[in-house]
Amino acid sequence: MENTIGRVNFGVVGVGGIAEIAHLPAIHKSEKAQLTAVCDIDKKRADATAKKWGAQATYYSMEEMVQNKEIDAIIVATPNVYHKENVILAANAKKNILCEKPLATNLKDAEEMISVCKTNNVLLQVGFSERFWNQTEIAKTLIEQGVIGEVYGFKATLNEKWGLFPAATDYRYDLSLSGGACIIDLAIHRIDLARYLVGEIERVCADITHVSIPYNVDDNVWILCSFRNGGSGCISANRFSPGVSNPIEMYGTEGNLFINLESFNPFHSVPIAIYTEKDPSLLPEILNLYFYPQNYWDQLGKNWISIVPPRENNFLKQLNAFIDAVLESTTPKVTGEDGLKVLEVVMAAYKSVNEKGWVNLPLREKVVEIPRY
Amino acid sequence: MENTIGRVNFGVVGVGGIAEIAHLPAIHKSEKAQLTAVCDIDKKRADATAKKWGAQATYYSMEEMVQNKEIDAIIVATPNVYHKENVILAANAKKNILCEKPLATNLKDAEEMISVCKTNNVLLQVGFSERFWNQTEIAKTLIEQGVIGEVYGFKATLNEKWGLFPAATDYRYDLSLSGGACIIDLAIHRIDLARYLVGEIERVCADITHVSIPYNVDDNVWILCSFRNGGSGCISANRFSPGVSNPIEMYGTEGNLFINLESFNPFHSVPIAIYTEKDPSLLPEILNLYFYPQNYWDQLGKNWISIVPPRENNFLKQLNAFIDAVLESTTPKVTGEDGLKVLEVVMAAYKSVNEKGWVNLPLREKVVEIPRY
Amino acid sequence: MENTIGRVNFGVVGVGGIAEIAHLPAIHKSEKAQLTAVCDIDKKRADATAKKWGAQATYYSMEEMVQNKEIDAIIVATPNVYHKENVILAANAKKNILCEKPLATNLKDAEEMISVCKTNNVLLQVGFSERFWNQTEIAKTLIEQGVIGEVYGFKATLNEKWGLFPAATDYRYDLSLSGGACIIDLAIHRIDLARYLVGEIERVCADITHVSIPYNVDDNVWILCSFRNGGSGCISANRFSPGVSNPIEMYGTEGNLFINLESFNPFHSVPIAIYTEKDPSLLPEILNLYFYPQNYWDQLGKNWISIVPPRENNFLKQLNAFIDAVLESTTPKVTGEDGLKVLEVVMAAYKSVNEKGWVNLPLREKVVEIPRY
Amino acid sequence: MENTIGRVNFGVVGVGGIAEIAHLPAIHKSEKAQLTAVCDIDKKRADATAKKWGAQATYYSMEEMVQNKEIDAIIVATPNVYHKENVILAANAKKNILCEKPLATNLKDAEEMISVCKTNNVLLQVGFSERFWNQTEIAKTLIEQGVIGEVYGFKATLNEKWGLFPAATDYRYDLSLSGGACIIDLAIHRIDLARYLVGEIERVCADITHVSIPYNVDDNVWILCSFRNGGSGCISANRFSPGVSNPIEMYGTEGNLFINLESFNPFHSVPIAIYTEKDPSLLPEILNLYFYPQNYWDQLGKNWISIVPPRENNFLKQLNAFIDAVLESTTPKVTGEDGLKVLEVVMAAYKSVNEKGWVNLPLREKVVEIPRY
Repeated sequence: MENTIGRVNFGVVGVGGIAEIAHLPAIHKSEKAQLTAVCDIDKKRADATAKKWGAQATYYSMEEMVQNKEIDAIIVATPNVYHKENVILAANAKKNILCEKPLATNLKDAEEMISVCKTNNVLLQVGFSERFWNQTEIAKTLIEQGVIGEVYGFKATLNEKWGLFPAATDYRYDLSLSGGACIIDLAIHRIDLARYLVGEIERVCADITHVSIPYNVDDNVWILCSFRNGGSGCISANRFSPGVSNPIEMYGTEGNLFINLESFNPFHSVPIAIYTEKDPSLLPEILNLYFYPQNYWDQLGKNWISIVPPRENNFLKQLNAFIDAVLESTTPKVTGEDGLKVLEVVMAAYKSVNEKGWVNLPLREKVVEIPRY
Repeated sequence: MENTIGRVNFGVVGVGGIAEIAHLPAIHKSEKAQLTAVCDIDKKRADATAKKWGAQATYYSMEEMVQNKEIDAIIVATPNVYHKENVILAANAKKNILCEKPLATNLKDAEEMISVCKTNNVLLQVGFSERFWNQTEIAKTLIEQGVIGEVYGFKATLNEKWGLFPAATDYRYDLSLSGGACIIDLAIHRIDLARYLVGEIERVCADITHVSIPYNVDDNVWILCSFRNGGSGCISANRFSPGVSNPIEMYGTEGNLFINLESFNPFHSVPIAIYTEKDPSLLPEILNLYFYPQNYWDQLGKNWISIVPPRENNFLKQLNAFIDAVLESTTPKVTGEDGLKVLEVVMAAYKSVNEKGWVNLPLREKVVEIPRY
Repeated sequence: MENTIGRVNFGVVGVGGIAEIAHLPAIHKSEKAQLTAVCDIDKKRADATAKKWGAQATYYSMEEMVQNKEIDAIIVATPNVYHKENVILAANAKKNILCEKPLATNLKDAEEMISVCKTNNVLLQVGFSERFWNQTEIAKTLIEQGVIGEVYGFKATLNEKWGLFPAATDYRYDLSLSGGACIIDLAIHRIDLARYLVGEIERVCADITHVSIPYNVDDNVWILCSFRNGGSGCISANRFSPGVSNPIEMYGTEGNLFINLESFNPFHSVPIAIYTEKDPSLLPEILNLYFYPQNYWDQLGKNWISIVPPRENNFLKQLNAFIDAVLESTTPKVTGEDGLKVLEVVMAAYKSVNEKGWVNLPLREKVVEIPRY
Repeated sequence: MENTIGRVNFGVVGVGGIAEIAHLPAIHKSEKAQLTAVCDIDKKRADATAKKWGAQATYYSMEEMVQNKEIDAIIVATPNVYHKENVILAANAKKNILCEKPLATNLKDAEEMISVCKTNNVLLQVGFSERFWNQTEIAKTLIEQGVIGEVYGFKATLNEKWGLFPAATDYRYDLSLSGGACIIDLAIHRIDLARYLVGEIERVCADITHVSIPYNVDDNVWILCSFRNGGSGCISANRFSPGVSNPIEMYGTEGNLFINLESFNPFHSVPIAIYTEKDPSLLPEILNLYFYPQNYWDQLGKNWISIVPPRENNFLKQLNAFIDAVLESTTPKVTGEDGLKVLEVVMAAYKSVNEKGWVNLPLREKVVEIPRY
């Protein structure tokens, strides 16, 4: 890109909850980011946000914002159904794009968005922010180094009671805007991590229901998965149980690896716990770094270890990774294709509910009907 | 029963691993139990066991042992496929029976065993020993008292690497003797707890495979369940990952309840953790008993609590519950029907694997083919 | 005593903070206690308290209350300097007495109080409520059974920032009423536990200062102790640091025993932790009861164990122990002599500050000047 | 110094336990260190050590080693009584010196050693390795930034049972070689940290005894301290209790700060725990970095925080700090004066035992008699 001063100028479209809690603070904290403009169809909110975060310009339509030549990149944080048009407008205006998850609400749109970005040679990163927790990154490294052997079991949950998150509107429970409730907002993060940490999913069987919350949408999601490597797993998420529960458990032939990301409780009380049967001399240094033995001279080995990495802001790390990819013209850590693949699993889960059984991936359908409850 | 001294005389058939690790020590410790006889077709092992534990008589055939009139009750701890004939012999000899899990290897056998016990008016308890952990009992009470509201989510795992348990033989991996490997040995405990803690299972979809261990049997079990109350869950078990992992997580509309039963690690480090949104004044006293606040005067309420009950021997508690039921002629805590219902879920899981999809309960088939790997 | 219905009728004199937080709730909860009367010179408070807790009678003078023949026992919870006259009035009226700590503000008074109680043949218990925590009782048992060998090291702290406790008045910081601030209110509990758990103290050297709080009294207490058994220790307490810190550490020749009583934090996070080098087969059953091993079959031995006993109300246990001693005419768990001995250590600490050095016990002086800051 | 390649060539004198466990591995790991020579009067041990760690030269006398011109710096790890002559020989040969603690066995020697180093313009660092734990460094920073206000309470312990450490000889229990047992080996570390973290000690009263171990030396050390800032504290150490216990507790007017350095147990289970009453916006970033809240959006503030820094090798960090000071000609982190001041506290403690009372600092005596037991 032509920005020679090593800084990326951002426009943010959709200044609701996630922009306010994640993206705008990240731009504010990053030394490599500048907030050039914000855009929202709600003028009052757009103005207030621009003032609060010091945006140079305020827009009420995306068409106008993309004409601002100062803007290098756009963060798309609008309701899901608008991601498509926002991304296409941005791409055609040669803006790099960090698009919130889900990439789109159906596979056809997602493919088109990816294609338009390619044509315009702009970078497209999808907002799977949980990959940027230090816990996730350490887990990825440990698995790649074989510390727990081949991973044949994966259990992951993300529960967050419906009223907990401070959302400005409840569009998340309007399926025509969101394309899905609990599955597309919460479970989708765990689907991404399943692919990232274990590998591609080959088939799913889903049990998705509405059991309790005051919106007539999915609030209890259970997805049984078979992985390409021969392993199995279950991804679950709900909107009805109090507190946030978010454990991820990985079972391998030579060890276990458990991580907890954003919320803690006495049961899931450590960020990372590892057990490995590997020879200690072959283990990566990070295990020694966090091995607090009972006695100073005890050696690491065939014992549980907890790792408590610094709790660095995952949204800031996500933004900086995007900026680095923009500045260095490299592939982003989470690509449009990742966004598409994850969405395909969501759609396969929908189909599984509609047809009551296993659904193989890849899907042939580009559009799957959202189950109704 | 006619035993007037308030003590039950036991015969134990099958003196392998579980008898040695669980039943014989329990009889030894219980003030209400006496070891009258042991029986095993392996004469050497029968003799050694009788000597070690002080049995008055030693038998090499069940037909002979059941003729011993001193014996009030028989513990059946033979390989699964022999449970049927052992139970029927015992019942016809008017002995009360504590039969190890699984009750049988198919539903037809299980029904016949229950019927013969009824006809002979003898008590039949199935060895779901995990119900007798204090953690399980406390969880049951808390759920019944509504502390976490309606339970719509259930996750339970029991992993134990194949070589960990000190078994005398490897019959557990001979499907013709065991009727199933990981599912019928480990997952079955979690199926029982699912029914006990949440309620009846209405349908299952199972992913059961062999991925790693040196026996050509199921070593990776994942069962997606829908419950009659509208909730969902996933039960998993494996024989390939090191260490024992055994967390159980329950998600309700007004709280969360997590228990860990027999093994601990830094991630699953407490026996019970509870979060409830209920008004503190309505909560059961046990929560106050184990609420160690940061400051003396802090009040319980909308906060996580850990409970660390005494780790009483669950096998001793199981035996004493059986003895009490025998002495007081009451229904045992785990009935033959419980054993049958749990076995039905196992068979439904087999059918789900064979037919690749959801299977509704109750099953029509009495015999389901064991999947081969 | 003549009360034949197995219940003790109480009068409570001094209805300030500790009566309200500890004694009145304990009487309310105990099945063996009845609140007959309350007494306070503050009429408004006396009336309000009587109404709140359902006392049958209200008095504004102790002389009147002791004439009530229904009253079997009196709890003395007035400012320290009044303990003497309250106890003597009660004893002469043949009432049994549970007197808050400190027993008195000088040794002469304490001796006289004990003597009058003896003459009148009434029972005198001093309110060292911390002996009644389950943690303390378990520690006492473990030490008596030799689990940690001979205890030669004792470290104990009780810090509670001056504004934390919800006191109705600040008499605790008026030395003419209290006879001492931090030392006589907080450190005194630890002196009692030192004697209870390790044995008699033979000499002390104290460093007691005022460093920070807005009352010109001792707020930083450090007492170095030599014990009769040859061991050493340090008791400390302060009124300036935030939160409550209350760890007690005992170091023995064959083990370590750490307890935390009323407040918890991530550093002092468990109620009891024990390490012992004893042969596991010789250890008391309670260690096995709370041994949650990594794997089910792991054996106890030369390993740390945490014990989390039920957090039963120590004030209720204190009251019930007093009632049992009254009803069964036995020696109370904490005698007047205990109160005297602990007070003697406080006075020795004062003398140590005044004279800048070690002070041997027993003291010859009956009255020691309170150091001023 | 003239070494232009940014690397320091080391000679190590005294290749016993601490050289083997600490210094030689540190030299091996450091990219800025090279092992040029080892020296020990025990020829066999010198040869074996040189071979094991790859020393270029082996010496049996210090006089010879100091003539090796390749050597830039010497680590003195001989029995304490020889530190003086080793340091003086090294200094006169213009070698920089990292001398194990204690610097010397009396103050006169220590002053002479410091003086000779100054005269020769060589750097002298004393081996107080516990300052180099990350926990200590973080604590230092937090205190300097006022996170816990003024520190008026300091409790520190270092217990290590006499047989635990793998020493080649038992010179540590020969007072003529060591100048003190438990106090000069263990407590001395805590005296250094007291000075480092709280400030200068103004007076001490010590209770030092022999209670249990099979050497007739001090095995139970308790030192009451008054600090120059008006605070108080107690430093203790013993050689009789099993396991290693090493908690350090600091109580300030606005917070508490607890650290545990080299060994862990369920009671002292975290490396650092902090409580502060400061306004969260004024707190250093490290607290936010390690604040794992119950819910993602919870804010830091008036709550306990645990910090689990990487457990980096404190001896390697000590060596690298020494190397940096050498290469950059800066003052080392632990100076000869620090070694002298700490030794003065040890001598004051001896005097306190000998004279049974408080001893003020600075001491007038340069030599104090070691108490005998």
